[in-house]
Amino acid sequence: MERPVRHFDEELETLQNRLLEMGGLAEERVRAAVQGLVTRDDAAIDKVQRGDEPINQLHIEIDDRCFRLLALYQPMATDLRAIVAAVKINADLERVGDLAVNIAEAGTRYITHAPVKKLIDIPRMGEIAQGMLRDALDAYVRRDTELARTVLNADDELDALKTQVFRELLTYMLEDPSTVEPALDLILISRHLERIGDHATNVAEDVIFMVSALDVRHHPPTNS
Amino acid sequence: MERPVRHFDEELETLQNRLLEMGGLAEERVRAAVQGLVTRDDAAIDKVQRGDEPINQLHIEIDDRCFRLLALYQPMATDLRAIVAAVKINADLERVGDLAVNIAEAGTRYITHAPVKKLIDIPRMGEIAQGMLRDALDAYVRRDTELARTVLNADDELDALKTQVFRELLTYMLEDPSTVEPALDLILISRHLERIGDHATNVAEDVIFMVSALDVRHHPPTNS
Repeated sequence: MERPVRHFDEELETLQNRLLEMGGLAEERVRAAVQGLVTRDDAAIDKVQRGDEPINQLHIEIDDRCFRLLALYQPMATDLRAIVAAVKINADLERVGDLAVNIAEAGTRYITHAPVKKLIDIPRMGEIAQGMLRDALDAYVRRDTELARTVLNADDELDALKTQVFRELLTYMLEDPSTVEPALDLILISRHLERIGDHATNVAEDVIFMVSALDVRHHPPTNS
Repeated sequence: MERPVRHFDEELETLQNRLLEMGGLAEERVRAAVQGLVTRDDAAIDKVQRGDEPINQLHIEIDDRCFRLLALYQPMATDLRAIVAAVKINADLERVGDLAVNIAEAGTRYITHAPVKKLIDIPRMGEIAQGMLRDALDAYVRRDTELARTVLNADDELDALKTQVFRELLTYMLEDPSTVEPALDLILISRHLERIGDHATNVAEDVIFMVSALDVRHHPPTNS
């Protein structure tokens, strides 16, 4: 049986577009959860807590597409790696959606207390995590290991901010017991954002693995 | 080309044995990290922090085996699902290894302070998380959805303990500021254990998905 190449390429492109769509949804939910926390907007936070159905639907659809591509076309080499990477990236993005819910849960509790401090580092962590997700997915679609490596570097920045947030909030907690509960929720939120960065890092590592194998197996060294 | 079935079955069995081995290592590292915390054994905790190389090696080896099986044998249906599940389970187990390191890191800080309380719920959480990992992997190897479902139930128990630990430690922190730092580390440790349960849950869900697809596609209803 001849392998229907054109259909495969089209289906792979659709798969990648769905992954980008899912990444966009996940990123938007992280943004909304952090924004709701900063503006102390209970309704916005509540919306994040109840809104993970579209991501869960996409998660199932993308998994199905991956299995179908593997079963129907029995792809080799790079194509195989691209699809297995998609299965893993799909799982990572679904968990980013869950983490947006976790941020919203802690945010709901946080805004019942007086603000501990003006929130600067946590929105910054949110921006970095969102940027990492976006870059990691772009790197996947473009097969761009350079871009994937910038994601790994951004993770160090996120870790440094997490440590800074932890130290600062610990000081508040030690000085004023009334800040213990809300500060604890901010610490948990900073950990959730760090984990989102970890998932983006996983995606970036999958991209590097996928493309490196491509280079080694199919691209003999050239002078270009 | 005829598909060399016997070799495939042997290789799939080897793959599963490696996954079990990796699960055993991950479980043992969680056990050692919690045990080191309970006995306040700095050397034991330090060993966990430095000892993730064998798991990382297995992680790479198992990924390679999965790709090789997919590329060489182009498996269909259940075999395909079993291998894609192995890729996902492998990623989950690697992160369990990372979480054992995170527990050890918090444990190192914790034992520099006076004990906040006798540790009962956290070792219990550790036991549950280890049991979930073991059952989830057994369920994978035996294709046992009943066992997989017990893992999902155990996760509820773990979540309940996590909430209980959180409330109790919060009380200590509010009453006595000297407990803030160590109690915070115990809270983080309980979160790490919860996440280990989440990874076991992911594995169990993969097993259910894998076997259900098998039932639907290949096993017409019988009277047995």
